[in-house]
Amino acid sequence: MIVLAYAHPHHARSRANRALLEAAESLPGVQVRRLYDLYPDFDIDVDTERAALARADAIVLQHPVYWYSVSALAKLWLDTVFVHGWAYGEGGTALVGKRFLWAVTTGGDESTYGPDGAHRHPFEAFIAPMRQTAQYCGMRWEAPFILHGARVVDDTVLAAHVEQYRDRLAALSIGKGDR
Amino acid sequence: MIVLAYAHPHHARSRANRALLEAAESLPGVQVRRLYDLYPDFDIDVDTERAALARADAIVLQHPVYWYSVSALAKLWLDTVFVHGWAYGEGGTALVGKRFLWAVTTGGDESTYGPDGAHRHPFEAFIAPMRQTAQYCGMRWEAPFILHGARVVDDTVLAAHVEQYRDRLAALSIGKGDR
Repeated sequence: MIVLAYAHPHHARSRANRALLEAAESLPGVQVRRLYDLYPDFDIDVDTERAALARADAIVLQHPVYWYSVSALAKLWLDTVFVHGWAYGEGGTALVGKRFLWAVTTGGDESTYGPDGAHRHPFEAFIAPMRQTAQYCGMRWEAPFILHGARVVDDTVLAAHVEQYRDRLAALSIGKGDR
Repeated sequence: MIVLAYAHPHHARSRANRALLEAAESLPGVQVRRLYDLYPDFDIDVDTERAALARADAIVLQHPVYWYSVSALAKLWLDTVFVHGWAYGEGGTALVGKRFLWAVTTGGDESTYGPDGAHRHPFEAFIAPMRQTAQYCGMRWEAPFILHGARVVDDTVLAAHVEQYRDRLAALSIGKGDR
């Protein structure tokens, strides 16, 4: 079973994340937790979140990229749910062995991520904090799912990414990852 | 003038950040904004924050590291204050030319940051998102101030770091940075 934490602060305005989320929700074995709907005041129920994650075989964190990182509520979720004694440290084995997929969209198209682009670096230069968070908790890091140019891709490109996302989630849900 | 945004979710329990903050507060020309005191419910007054930052010659973001990154309220501050049309993009020049210092503490001592340590990478491997955020807004990135082992350093080491921090801030406040 996959637990997908969705952390978009402006879902109503979203096009790409909405399409990706709908694909996820259409799959069996995917439990979606819309964090901004559940916790609009940033008062995360950490026990509920932990119970959901404990049951998962794979965890997906889906959101638009904000400042080369997670959205603010996703950060609060990581900081309050993935804590010592539960996610790491003595007795902290709740997440060990689960697969972890970071599924993100960026605003700028891929060409903006590179030495000559506005963001100066490939997106991969920014993944270390998320990857090491997952790995520190003993999870199996999957190759991130990245949709660049979420605001500018045409319908055909978006549809192709949605299909790829569905495939990635379907593979995850039967215990197959990216390797 | 320096504006120092302080984002510690558990200041009352802090030892190292408290000592560093007290040093900062003792300096002339440093305006401290304790974000968790100002916005315990994560309802950031973005206009007030922008007005404060606009007046600053240098901006310091001080907090303990959470998951190789900023604390959650610091992330919300970045995501809601540093936005298109103000911090970047068309008309977004409010931060251009200001110096930016990332001042952080980590729990594990420095040896945990390295290929053989629990965190597998030197801390520098995790700074790209923060550095590029500052640079994308046209700010001048200062070498980060990092105190490793905030929970374990002895008083002598802590005092030496506090002194270094005071020196870094004093240099920043007279327009001198790390280079």
